[in-house]
Amino acid sequence: MALKVRYADGKVGEVEEPVEALEIYRHSTSHLMAAAVCSLFPDTHLGIGPAVSDGFFYDFDRATNFTEDDLPRIEAKMRELASRDLNYQPRILTREEAVGLFSKKGEDLKVELIEERAGQQLSCYQLGDLVDFCLGPHVYSTGLIHPDSFRVMSLAGSYWKGDEGNRRMQRIYGTAFLTPGDLQAHLAQLEEAKKRDHRKLGRELDLFSVSEEAGPGLIFWHPKGTRVRLVIEDFLRQVLLRRGYEFVVTPHIARNALWRTSGHYDYYRENMYVFNIEDEEFVIKPMNCPGHIQIYKSGMRSYRDLPLRFAEFGTVYRQEKSGVLHGMLRVRGFTQDDAHIFCTREQVYGEISDLLDLVLFVMQAFAFDKYQVELSVRDESRRQDYAGTEEDWRMAESALVQAMTAKGMQWKRMEGEAVFYGPKIDVKLIDAIGRPWQLSTVQFDFTLPKRFDLAYIGPDGQPHQPVMLHRALLGSIERFMGVLIEHFAGAFPIWLAPVQATVIPIAVRHQPYGRQVLEQLANAGLRVEIDDRNEKMGYKIREAQAKKVPFMLVVGDKEAQSGQISVRNRTEGDKGAQSVESFIAAIRGHIEARSVRP
Amino acid sequence: MALKVRYADGKVGEVEEPVEALEIYRHSTSHLMAAAVCSLFPDTHLGIGPAVSDGFFYDFDRATNFTEDDLPRIEAKMRELASRDLNYQPRILTREEAVGLFSKKGEDLKVELIEERAGQQLSCYQLGDLVDFCLGPHVYSTGLIHPDSFRVMSLAGSYWKGDEGNRRMQRIYGTAFLTPGDLQAHLAQLEEAKKRDHRKLGRELDLFSVSEEAGPGLIFWHPKGTRVRLVIEDFLRQVLLRRGYEFVVTPHIARNALWRTSGHYDYYRENMYVFNIEDEEFVIKPMNCPGHIQIYKSGMRSYRDLPLRFAEFGTVYRQEKSGVLHGMLRVRGFTQDDAHIFCTREQVYGEISDLLDLVLFVMQAFAFDKYQVELSVRDESRRQDYAGTEEDWRMAESALVQAMTAKGMQWKRMEGEAVFYGPKIDVKLIDAIGRPWQLSTVQFDFTLPKRFDLAYIGPDGQPHQPVMLHRALLGSIERFMGVLIEHFAGAFPIWLAPVQATVIPIAVRHQPYGRQVLEQLANAGLRVEIDDRNEKMGYKIREAQAKKVPFMLVVGDKEAQSGQISVRNRTEGDKGAQSVESFIAAIRGHIEARSVRP
Repeated sequence: MALKVRYADGKVGEVEEPVEALEIYRHSTSHLMAAAVCSLFPDTHLGIGPAVSDGFFYDFDRATNFTEDDLPRIEAKMRELASRDLNYQPRILTREEAVGLFSKKGEDLKVELIEERAGQQLSCYQLGDLVDFCLGPHVYSTGLIHPDSFRVMSLAGSYWKGDEGNRRMQRIYGTAFLTPGDLQAHLAQLEEAKKRDHRKLGRELDLFSVSEEAGPGLIFWHPKGTRVRLVIEDFLRQVLLRRGYEFVVTPHIARNALWRTSGHYDYYRENMYVFNIEDEEFVIKPMNCPGHIQIYKSGMRSYRDLPLRFAEFGTVYRQEKSGVLHGMLRVRGFTQDDAHIFCTREQVYGEISDLLDLVLFVMQAFAFDKYQVELSVRDESRRQDYAGTEEDWRMAESALVQAMTAKGMQWKRMEGEAVFYGPKIDVKLIDAIGRPWQLSTVQFDFTLPKRFDLAYIGPDGQPHQPVMLHRALLGSIERFMGVLIEHFAGAFPIWLAPVQATVIPIAVRHQPYGRQVLEQLANAGLRVEIDDRNEKMGYKIREAQAKKVPFMLVVGDKEAQSGQISVRNRTEGDKGAQSVESFIAAIRGHIEARSVRP
Repeated sequence: MALKVRYADGKVGEVEEPVEALEIYRHSTSHLMAAAVCSLFPDTHLGIGPAVSDGFFYDFDRATNFTEDDLPRIEAKMRELASRDLNYQPRILTREEAVGLFSKKGEDLKVELIEERAGQQLSCYQLGDLVDFCLGPHVYSTGLIHPDSFRVMSLAGSYWKGDEGNRRMQRIYGTAFLTPGDLQAHLAQLEEAKKRDHRKLGRELDLFSVSEEAGPGLIFWHPKGTRVRLVIEDFLRQVLLRRGYEFVVTPHIARNALWRTSGHYDYYRENMYVFNIEDEEFVIKPMNCPGHIQIYKSGMRSYRDLPLRFAEFGTVYRQEKSGVLHGMLRVRGFTQDDAHIFCTREQVYGEISDLLDLVLFVMQAFAFDKYQVELSVRDESRRQDYAGTEEDWRMAESALVQAMTAKGMQWKRMEGEAVFYGPKIDVKLIDAIGRPWQLSTVQFDFTLPKRFDLAYIGPDGQPHQPVMLHRALLGSIERFMGVLIEHFAGAFPIWLAPVQATVIPIAVRHQPYGRQVLEQLANAGLRVEIDDRNEKMGYKIREAQAKKVPFMLVVGDKEAQSGQISVRNRTEGDKGAQSVESFIAAIRGHIEARSVRP
C-alpha cells in the first residue's frame, strides 16, 4: 500500500518502502500534533518534532506546564484537524524569507535552526495555521492519517538540542502506525511489556534491588536472582571450556597509563571513573580488553599457542547520567560475558564461524528463536578515518560475510556503521513479545594489537601481529537478566528457575514427610523449598503460582502413606501422584533439555 | 632451660617461659649488634632496636650507607664481643641524668625518646662501650648468647618512628634463637620458603602476574591460575550451599552515604578509594558488609526467615602503600570469601558451632592439618570503649568458648585484642614448612545492626535486632592462593592442579592416538594437555615434572596397539601401563578424596 506524499518542492509522489513510509507518516503526525497544540495553547513556541523508533515527539517551549489531562484534549484536536483533510503545503523560501517569517511569528528556536543551516534554498510546510521549518516530505493531506492510527502517549522534560545548558523544553511523545491494527498491536505489546516489567517482577520475585543509599544504577543481586545468575554463568562456562576458551580474572582498577596506551583515556574519558592512589591517577575499568591484553603480554607467544581465547565475567563501571538509568537494562555497573580472541590471519575464518555457531547455540539455549543480524562496515567514502589496512578490512569483512553465508544467516548491511577500529556483527534477539534486544556482538579490533605492540613468533621465527576479536554473547549479565525476566514474564524455564519446586504439606502432620521429600530433592541437586506455614493448601498453591515456581508438590495422608507426591505444574495444573524418584528423573530431563515448558 | 636475666633495677632472675625468654634473648642480641656496629663504625648514632616476630632489628642513623659486605663483619664482631662474656649492666637514672648522658654522647634520638617518657625513674644498660636507653630486662651477660645462635640478615631503609616525614634511618635485621639448632631450623625454613616463593612459582607455573603498566598490588589471574581459583570457588560454593548459605552479588562502588551510615567513612577513610559521580562522592568498596546489609534490608524479615547466611566472593580494594605490597600476599585488590550471618540470639550458639565445623572441614580439604586459634576479647578495664551491651559480650564470648570446648579445640585468649564492635576468633593455619597464616575469622558485630537499624519481626509480632556475624574461611582468595602455592611448593593436589595430566606421544606417529586419549580424558571432565612438540620423550617428561603436573601419560607403539597409556606420576615415577578407563577411575577417586598425593 503506497503512501501519497508531497515533497518540499511541491512534487507529489508515492512511497512504497514500509520503513520509509512509516517514518514520513509519523513525522506528519508529529506536525499534526504541533498544529493541535498551537491551536489549543496559542502561547506555545516550537522546538523540533521528529519521528523516532517507536513513534514521534515534539518539543515545545511554553511558560505553563502541560499536564496529563491535556493529552486527551490534544489527541481529540488532532482527530478534528485530521478529519478536515488539510494539506501539508510546502513552500520554498530563501534564507532571508525564512528568517523573516519565523522572526515575525516569534519562533526564535526555528530562527536559530535556520541560521545554522547551510544553503540558500530552504523550505517550510504549512498545515492549517501551523507553519513549520521543515525539509519534508510529508503525507499529502491529513485525510491520509487514519484517526485510529495514532496516540498521544506521554509528557517529559527535555532540553533544547539535548544540552542541559540550554532552555528547558516540554516534550510530548506520541506514536503512530500505518494502520489502526498496527497501532493496536503496539499498544497491546506495551501493555504486555508493562506486566512483564523486570523492575516490578524483580521485586515480586525477590530477584534484585537497587538501593537509594548505595546509589542508582547499581544492582544488588538477591539470593534468588543470584541463583539464576550462577546457573547462567555455570552454563556459559561449561560451554566455553568445551570450545577451547580459558578463563582469566583481571582487576577492576588500573593506572591511567594502561588506558593511555589503549587510547581509552583520550577517546573514552567521559565514560570512565577516575581516582587517585599516592597522587597517581587510576581508572575503574570500563572495559576488560586492556586487562586481557596484559595477560597476553605476560609471556612470549608462539603461533603454536594461537588461537588464545580469554574469557571473563568481567564487571565494568561506566558513567551514565542518573536520569537515563533503568532497572537492570541501563546501569552504571555491569558484568560482561566478555572474551577476546587472539589468532593468526589464517585462523580468522574458523574463529568467526565458531563464534556464530556459539551465538546461535546460546540464543537457542535461552529460548530465543528469532533474531536480526547487522553487519556494520566502513563508510567507503571516509576510508582514511579508519584504523587498519585495506587488507585488514577486506579480510575481516570477507570472513564475516562468508561465515554468515555458510550458516544460511540473513543480515542487514549497515554502511558506515562500523566503529573506526574494525567491522562487527551485532545480533539482536527478538523476545516473546516481539521486541528486539541487542545482545551478542563480534568485533574486529585493528588498533589495540598495534597500540600494545602485541606479537607472536610465527613458523618463520619472526614476530607477527595477531588479529584481535572482541566478543560478547549475552552482552551484560545484568541487562540479559532484565531481558530474560521480561522474555519469560518471570516464569523461568526449570533449568533457570531460582526455585524449581515447592513442597506443600497439607496439614502440620504432613510436615515431617514433606521435609523428607525436600531433603531427597535437595540431595538430587534441585533448588527446592518447603512452605510449612500454617496456611490453607489453596493459599499456598496460589502463592507458589504467583512466585512462578514450576512445580508444586502437595503431600498429605495419601502421599505420605504411598511414599509419593502430588505434582502440580504452573502451566498445566494437577498432574497426579507419582514417586519422588520418577519426579526427579522427569525434572532432570527438563533441566538437561533446557525445556521452556512446563 | 631457664634464661638468667638482669632487670633494670639490678636484680638477677630466671625466665622459664619460652616466648618471653626468646624475646629477651633477641633484644639482648640486638644490643650486641648495636655494640658491634658502634665499635666498627664510630660515626653511627642509635635509633631503636626491638625484638620482632622472627628476630630483631636495630635502626641506625649514619651519613654513610651500610653495605651488604658490612654484614659479615658485624656478625664477626658480635661473636668476638659475645666471647668476652660482657655484662648487660643496668643503671637507674633520673630524667635529668639520662638527658645529660645521651646529650653528651650526641644521641639526639635517644634524648627525644627520654623526653617523651613519663616518670622520673629511667634506666639504661651498658654493654662494653655501648650505653643504650632501655627498660630491660636483658640476659645476664653475652656469654649466654651462643655464637651460633644468631645471624645478621639484611639491610633496609626505614624512617624514624616509621614516619616518612622524619629522618631516614638504616635498619639492620638480624635473627636469634635460644639454641643453634633452632636457628638452623629457621634458616632451613627460610631457604625452603625461598624455593617455594609464590611469586617465583607463579611465574614458572604461569599462574598469575602483576603488571607494571596496570599498577602494583593488582593481580592478573592467568588461565592456569584461574583454573585453580575456579576449583576453589566451586568447591566452596557447593560446601556453602549444602550448609544453607545463599549467594548474593553486590556492586563494587556505592555512594559515600552508605559508608557514612556504616561508620567506615569516619573510621576507615584512609583505607578507602573515593571518586566522584555527578559531583557526589562514591567509594570503591573496601568491605562487603554494607552491601549484604542492603539486601537484608530490601524486604521485611521475620524470625522464620532467620538465620540468613549471605555469601559472596566479593572483590574489595584497599589503600596499601606500594612499598608494602608483596605478590599475592599483600595486595590492593582482593576477593574475600565473605559471608554475613543474621540470626536471633537463640541461634548464635548453633551458628558458631557450625562455623567452627566449617573452618575445620575446609582447612582439612586444603591439606592443612595444624592450626592455632586465638580468641580476642575485650580489655575489661576499658569496657566503656566497646560497642554492644554487657549481655552482648557475655553471650558472644560464651558461645565462642562453649563451641570451641565442645569441639575439643585449643585456643589462646587474647585479652584486649577484640575490635571495638565485638569479640572474634582467628584461625591461623600452619603450612607445610611450619609458618602460620591467619586465614579464617569469625567476628561478632554489635554496631552495624544498630547503625543500619536492622530488624526482624519476632514471634511476638514485635521488631527485634538480629545478631550479625562476619566470617571468612580463606580470608582472601588471592592471599590463600599465594599460601597454597607455597604450602604445596606449586605441586597442587590433583583436584586443584591446573593441569591434571599431560599426554606425551613418544613420536610424531603416536600423536593421533595421543589426541584420542586427550579427548577421552577431557570428555571425562579432566584438565588435560598434550605435548605434541617434536622433542625427546625424556625432555617432555622433565618439563611436565618441572610444571608439577601430577600425571604424565606416555603413549607409543605398545600403548597405541593395546589401547592403553603408560602412567608416570610426579612423585613416584613410572607406574606401568593401564587402560584409559581405569586411569580415569583412579584419578576421579583422587579428586573426590581431595588426596594430596601422588
